[in-house]
Amino acid sequence: MKELELARVYQLIEPGPVVLLTTARNGRANVMTMSWHMMVEFEPPLIACVVSAADYSFAALRATKECVIAIPAVRLAQEVVNIGNCSGRDVAKFEKFGLTPTPAKRVAAPLIAECFANLECKVVDRRLVKMYNLFVVEVLQAWIDRSQKNPKTIHHQGYGKCVVDGETLKLKSKMR
Amino acid sequence: MKELELARVYQLIEPGPVVLLTTARNGRANVMTMSWHMMVEFEPPLIACVVSAADYSFAALRATKECVIAIPAVRLAQEVVNIGNCSGRDVAKFEKFGLTPTPAKRVAAPLIAECFANLECKVVDRRLVKMYNLFVVEVLQAWIDRSQKNPKTIHHQGYGKCVVDGETLKLKSKMR
Repeated sequence: MKELELARVYQLIEPGPVVLLTTARNGRANVMTMSWHMMVEFEPPLIACVVSAADYSFAALRATKECVIAIPAVRLAQEVVNIGNCSGRDVAKFEKFGLTPTPAKRVAAPLIAECFANLECKVVDRRLVKMYNLFVVEVLQAWIDRSQKNPKTIHHQGYGKCVVDGETLKLKSKMR
Repeated sequence: MKELELARVYQLIEPGPVVLLTTARNGRANVMTMSWHMMVEFEPPLIACVVSAADYSFAALRATKECVIAIPAVRLAQEVVNIGNCSGRDVAKFEKFGLTPTPAKRVAAPLIAECFANLECKVVDRRLVKMYNLFVVEVLQAWIDRSQKNPKTIHHQGYGKCVVDGETLKLKSKMR
């Protein structure tokens, strides 16, 4: 994994891919599937995300204030759904789904070696946690695996139905 | 446009499409392009979104507490980028870009006839507006144009580069 400059993190999150969120608490790593996230600021990159209080990851995220947001390409699609269909209360998910936890640099939560991008994050705003389970996190460090060429991400449309990235358009734009 | 049940709104927003946001203030309608949004709750559907204080729409959204989130399919892609590249301060965007404003049922902001889905929204939480320009809105009424078959949405990757919805996967899932 190579470092990715923080100003480019929005290019990964803004398109709305299904992501994996890892946490670590008391030496135990866990991973969940998440689609409710968005960019909030370019740099430093801030991301808002909803982690349900019913999710096992919720308590770890709230207590440790750290996580990794990892972005899987389509070859992990069935694992991504399966990860979302069970709980870390019952299952050691990294082992069960054949994911390789890799030490992060700035947080205790692990990177996922099989994902093409990994974002190390700390929680910076909890004001909307109580009402909406909405956390604002800051990306401290970003990693990209350039050996995965043109990774296609997946976008969840409900009930296990996902749409995969298709053609790329390069439209005339004035944006930076 | 047919009514869409509110419990299905998440299936439109969760995949992360580029959307258009309309407002109306003092009899003048405006429209902006937005990619920083996410679901917050299934039903009633709550959506978080970031509307920059630099956007002309910001003041209208803050003052009227109403908007429409309209979802364009790929045939509108260049218009969507162009809408994001100019301001309602200078341009009457509905006219300039050939969009048809249509009266909404519950809010003053207009629907966009050319979009395959339209969500009428009211602002329900402004606690993170000051720090992040982050609004939480509730969808009051949702509309879908079933004459647009299998609409492909677009996902922004920065600098006018967009990825279009590709193949659909139906993965085994336990989710409702």
